[in-house]
Amino acid sequence: MEAGEGKTPLYQANVARGVFGSCSVLFDNVSSLSGVSSATPTEEMNGAGNLMDFLDEPFPDVGTYEDFHTIDWLREKSRDTDRHRKITSKSKESIWELIKSLLDAWSGWVVMLLIGLLSGTLAGVIDLAVDWMTDLKEGVCLSAFWYSHEQCCWTSNETTFDDRDKCPQWQKWAELMTGHAEGAGAYVLNYFLYILWALLFSFLAVSLVRVFAPYACGSGIPEIKTILSGFIIRGYLGKWTLLIKTVTLVLAVSSGLSLGKEGPLVHVACCCGNLFCSLFSKYSKNEGKRREVLSAAAAAGVSVAFGAPIGGVLFSLEEVSYYFPLKTLWRSFFAALVAAFTLRSINPFGNSRLVLFYVEYHTPWYMAELVPFILLGVFGGLWGTLFIRANIAWCRRRKTTQLGKYPVLEVIAITGITAVLAYPNPYTRRSTSELISELFNDCGALESSQLCDYINNPNMSRPVDDIPDRPAGPGVYNALWQLALALVFKIVITIFTFGMKIPSGLFIPSMAVGAIAGRIVGIAVEQMAYHHHDWIIFKNWCRPGADCVTPGLYAMVGAAACLGGVTRMTVSLVVIMFELTGGLEYIVPLMAAAVTSKWVADAFGKEGIYESHIQLNGYPYLDVRDEFTHRTLATDVMRPRRNDPPLAVLTQDTTTVEDVETLIKDTDYNGFPVVVSRESERLIGFVQRRDLTLAIKNARQKQDGVVSSSVVYFTEDAPQLPASNPQPLKLRRILNLSPFTVTDHTPMETVVDIFRKLGLRQCLVTRSGRLLGIITKKDVLRHMAQMMNQDPESIMFN
Amino acid sequence: MEAGEGKTPLYQANVARGVFGSCSVLFDNVSSLSGVSSATPTEEMNGAGNLMDFLDEPFPDVGTYEDFHTIDWLREKSRDTDRHRKITSKSKESIWELIKSLLDAWSGWVVMLLIGLLSGTLAGVIDLAVDWMTDLKEGVCLSAFWYSHEQCCWTSNETTFDDRDKCPQWQKWAELMTGHAEGAGAYVLNYFLYILWALLFSFLAVSLVRVFAPYACGSGIPEIKTILSGFIIRGYLGKWTLLIKTVTLVLAVSSGLSLGKEGPLVHVACCCGNLFCSLFSKYSKNEGKRREVLSAAAAAGVSVAFGAPIGGVLFSLEEVSYYFPLKTLWRSFFAALVAAFTLRSINPFGNSRLVLFYVEYHTPWYMAELVPFILLGVFGGLWGTLFIRANIAWCRRRKTTQLGKYPVLEVIAITGITAVLAYPNPYTRRSTSELISELFNDCGALESSQLCDYINNPNMSRPVDDIPDRPAGPGVYNALWQLALALVFKIVITIFTFGMKIPSGLFIPSMAVGAIAGRIVGIAVEQMAYHHHDWIIFKNWCRPGADCVTPGLYAMVGAAACLGGVTRMTVSLVVIMFELTGGLEYIVPLMAAAVTSKWVADAFGKEGIYESHIQLNGYPYLDVRDEFTHRTLATDVMRPRRNDPPLAVLTQDTTTVEDVETLIKDTDYNGFPVVVSRESERLIGFVQRRDLTLAIKNARQKQDGVVSSSVVYFTEDAPQLPASNPQPLKLRRILNLSPFTVTDHTPMETVVDIFRKLGLRQCLVTRSGRLLGIITKKDVLRHMAQMMNQDPESIMFN
Repeated sequence: MEAGEGKTPLYQANVARGVFGSCSVLFDNVSSLSGVSSATPTEEMNGAGNLMDFLDEPFPDVGTYEDFHTIDWLREKSRDTDRHRKITSKSKESIWELIKSLLDAWSGWVVMLLIGLLSGTLAGVIDLAVDWMTDLKEGVCLSAFWYSHEQCCWTSNETTFDDRDKCPQWQKWAELMTGHAEGAGAYVLNYFLYILWALLFSFLAVSLVRVFAPYACGSGIPEIKTILSGFIIRGYLGKWTLLIKTVTLVLAVSSGLSLGKEGPLVHVACCCGNLFCSLFSKYSKNEGKRREVLSAAAAAGVSVAFGAPIGGVLFSLEEVSYYFPLKTLWRSFFAALVAAFTLRSINPFGNSRLVLFYVEYHTPWYMAELVPFILLGVFGGLWGTLFIRANIAWCRRRKTTQLGKYPVLEVIAITGITAVLAYPNPYTRRSTSELISELFNDCGALESSQLCDYINNPNMSRPVDDIPDRPAGPGVYNALWQLALALVFKIVITIFTFGMKIPSGLFIPSMAVGAIAGRIVGIAVEQMAYHHHDWIIFKNWCRPGADCVTPGLYAMVGAAACLGGVTRMTVSLVVIMFELTGGLEYIVPLMAAAVTSKWVADAFGKEGIYESHIQLNGYPYLDVRDEFTHRTLATDVMRPRRNDPPLAVLTQDTTTVEDVETLIKDTDYNGFPVVVSRESERLIGFVQRRDLTLAIKNARQKQDGVVSSSVVYFTEDAPQLPASNPQPLKLRRILNLSPFTVTDHTPMETVVDIFRKLGLRQCLVTRSGRLLGIITKKDVLRHMAQMMNQDPESIMFN
Repeated sequence: MEAGEGKTPLYQANVARGVFGSCSVLFDNVSSLSGVSSATPTEEMNGAGNLMDFLDEPFPDVGTYEDFHTIDWLREKSRDTDRHRKITSKSKESIWELIKSLLDAWSGWVVMLLIGLLSGTLAGVIDLAVDWMTDLKEGVCLSAFWYSHEQCCWTSNETTFDDRDKCPQWQKWAELMTGHAEGAGAYVLNYFLYILWALLFSFLAVSLVRVFAPYACGSGIPEIKTILSGFIIRGYLGKWTLLIKTVTLVLAVSSGLSLGKEGPLVHVACCCGNLFCSLFSKYSKNEGKRREVLSAAAAAGVSVAFGAPIGGVLFSLEEVSYYFPLKTLWRSFFAALVAAFTLRSINPFGNSRLVLFYVEYHTPWYMAELVPFILLGVFGGLWGTLFIRANIAWCRRRKTTQLGKYPVLEVIAITGITAVLAYPNPYTRRSTSELISELFNDCGALESSQLCDYINNPNMSRPVDDIPDRPAGPGVYNALWQLALALVFKIVITIFTFGMKIPSGLFIPSMAVGAIAGRIVGIAVEQMAYHHHDWIIFKNWCRPGADCVTPGLYAMVGAAACLGGVTRMTVSLVVIMFELTGGLEYIVPLMAAAVTSKWVADAFGKEGIYESHIQLNGYPYLDVRDEFTHRTLATDVMRPRRNDPPLAVLTQDTTTVEDVETLIKDTDYNGFPVVVSRESERLIGFVQRRDLTLAIKNARQKQDGVVSSSVVYFTEDAPQLPASNPQPLKLRRILNLSPFTVTDHTPMETVVDIFRKLGLRQCLVTRSGRLLGIITKKDVLRHMAQMMNQDPESIMFN
């Protein structure tokens, strides 16, 4: 009964109710913001098909899309080719046109360069600000208040890291206020101020998001995946979102909540991409081309998040992008590199290293260690499943109950709980990336953390980088307890944190859970090997005095496993980890853990956290990875169904303007098929609702003699009518003469494939040339959901 | 006038004339070899559409393809889904079926594991054999004749590399035969024996290829690209090809010809992939699934060629593969890793290093150095253009003149010339990979090659890894001259070598050209900086006594530029180089050179060497990267053309068996559209020629009463006929009820896009439901060639 994708009122109702997005969005604030697709192409506007009346003056806005609608990739591509053709033919006319055409050809690279520069700079600024504000919760640098703890003590001459941390320039709040650095009073004061700062930061973050840019919350990756697949969400990548997300990301991370900056950095980079798109009409006026730029921007985002440009490109390819031609691959790589090098020039970590967690291990791994690595993989898979289920359940509760109405209170409460529980434990008090960094590290000779409190053999005089396995000292056992508590705390709190109304990434908390578990396992294996080196499993590779187990490697493997379990990344995950360590040596352990984790997690449910959130929010996202293997045919899916009223169609030469207006008023379909006559039902084309509305409005205003009883002609030539008849309205130029058709016998798997690969919006169903019905993208999605035995209503648009 | 893709008689004529492939193939030897697609599926055989009469007994071979035909990706995918569905539904019946379904699900990983193991092993064996046989041209190891020079002198105690090379166990031929190691007589004898061995090896190689496996010649990458895009070349990936290609690759490389083993290793890995496909009906019976495995195998091939697994995967993605779903990405990565680790376990280079050219640089690069790097990029682009043009011209001459008839003589002649010219120059005498390795190396303290003959400051007492820039000694100037001669020699001889009737890769010779040029430039910059460190450009970064220029890095950048110019690889090239050096540090120079090289080369012609060879050989390859921007419509391309006889169609219920047989005899189309009646021309389906032939043959043999005058019915139910009429033949089950259609107004860019993305073989053209014509893949290719203003006859099939 339907033609074209509807206006999805239920969907918009959801939005209005504030249940849109992975964190609720207050919609009234958004409409005024700039963003995706305010383009007004003035060129060829009805996509493929009618080249004859190309010279007719087009009317503005034809060929654009409304908010929350799906784009037609084929049409966008075709429009870009026309534009390209025009420029190429013009370029032969004059030097100036030639220069313009060259500029046009280079604009892609310019955009990439700008994206790389801006997102690298923003990432550097964010890193510096987070460093400073995280330390501000504990104390202040007296020599220069804008220095972080590390920068403040940079010039200290102490040899061990621990002593260096206690440099006199850095003062904790209690010391500064009361003069006492130690004692219960100082501890309580520090504790109190820590909580206060945390609450202040998170309150600021959530308020800014609420007031200025509701779209700035969450990780943004589910929405970006949806946008890249061809959905329009205006304002999601706008300037305001960019600004507010950057600021609130700093606040949110500094507040000590269990969240990371990696996902939001992808969103920030995509906002940069969208911003620079508006400089070039090539990108701003074509939703398809714009999405190519955004794919590259996503790569730049991950590149700066981890300092892993290749991993970033593969992440964009594997996880985020929908349409990723080879040209985009190359450009993404360029953008990712520029971003990484900009970040390195800013040098926020002060070590000239590009990567977030730089590690260097000195020991190879042994085959027998694959057993604990695989166990970590299993743990990662189970954690992924647990996290996804629990988080989705909690987010659903937030959407459906009163909870969703008090986002500020929720953030304040979670921050309070986090701060109160985190402070006493040194492993949760510090920032999560510092924690991961320490867990990944191998214990060197100068390392003074608790985790490296091993009992040294006094006779030992080894070089620094080859310390043999030693028995653990009391510090290590103490650390193990604290780590175990930290693990439980992180697991629970992350479930409640992800999805709140502040920018929040998942990579860092997931990696922290895995790194803690991995380090615990690593120390256990190490001590077992030390105390029982005559056991058969250790005998071959772990002689006394050898350095055979690296607990830091276990932490890294665990982190990869947990991240893999949550996101279901595979190749990009391993490559990111490979770029962190810089050695092919450890790819096998990482891969073993990543594969195990994915298999275990997949056994409980195919969807990663991003897909789950996409589904939770009911975005019309057609996943490339879902295999459709059911034996249904196009005829089972198409509208109208058996008992529905017939398809709403236009005829080529008997419909009047009034008929069309009634049809537009009475239905909310996105477009209408045009047939020769109602009797023969032979299809001649498809016309978009938006184009039809604009064309009639335009004609009524400008064209004399077009009245309600004028006949609308979609034929090539309107017949000569007697003067008494009202003037006809010729609309062939907005008619798409090459609508996509399949036969009613086409298996749905083929239809799904066609929708995916060609990025269609709708497809007409015919039998022996007769129009039978229509299948829209949402029909396909609904059918897929039904076939998966899921509640079809989980796809929320009607 | 045509229906379906023709049997391409001209194409086959080419093959018979022996002008097929990048090296001429004698066709009579091939037909008996096993290879791609001798599958005989007994399951559902007519692809998409008719699920009703699924239970009818199918006849053998229906649904397979003939040699030199294009597969239909949609049909293959649909067949695989059916198979999958069957297994899934059966798996609920019994434990045994469940196990079978699990095995089926795991078979992909098993195949990948086997491919990795076998291709890694083969690569290791090839490396060892090449090492030994290359050295055999110069001398023999007395302690054990199967040792290469390096292995023979492994235990020597000398400190410098040069002295170690002169260990007593290793004797040159002259020394062994006459007792004199030095002198003119010994030189001449060594020279003579060097040539003799080279001729022997190359003669053996070309003879083996000619007699046993004509497909084993060339690099194989153009053919593999074509096969992966959906073309059938039987025997190209067969067991014989695998065996002979492995053996002759060793011989060809050892003979000292200017060729590499990287391209052929990809072919070898793909043969392994095809071999293991035959173990599982899932892959052996489905051409689409088989190609997924082959894509992964190509990744494994590059992975072992360079020791770069990630680069291998990206190479397969960027350069070789056509259809590369995410699942394949992950599996390719697995196969590439297994292959790399198998190779490392074999350890053919004796240094536990995975990579072919391991380098470690100790100096950063400076912004000013980008100028020479970009100049190297320009050189690479020019070399790429020159090489492609000259090589294609030479190969065309070989195809069209008498030259092609004497492949053995040609190989012997080129080997002779190569050996005679190569021996006197130490840089061309050794194997090309050794040369590249030396050129890439930074001059350490222990290095004793000519290239490291710098004048040392006697007061110098620096650590080994930080040697300052020094003035060049006479050895360096001597080396520069020899390198310049080697450069000219390599440039010229490679043009004539690539495309001969032996296995020959292009990577190593291209890299050698670039590495020589790069090293020369590097030494020039270094000496300029040393002697003129007060020049404004050197002032800032090159103080006296500093180590500021690394000539080895220039060699590496030059190698990347030249390889990029020839192959037009981009991301994969940089990643491979990144894996060789293992540091992100040098990505910017590499990328600058690679981008410049690609831009310069693209300015002279868009096609890389592989695409050029594909075009030269007229393979039906639809390049994903060619953008089609012309403004033609489907109606301009479809057959029949204006003055052609009407389309050869079948009607659904009026054609007799005799009519069908006449049609099959008189035409050579690949398939026929079926219409309701000749008057209405309403399309109901499409039937494959092969299926039709087999069905009629089968019916005539087995079904009583089917005679020439029997009516063929494609309708759902044949009408009840009087007993006097001959029995009708019901053929609905071989009818594809969902043929792909477009309207005549569809722009060709959309049609090209559809052909590419969906992997179609043909597409029917309709207007308002009436069948107008047909467009086949070759029509599309021919049209694209025409539009590019090329001679349409360069697409050789008719």
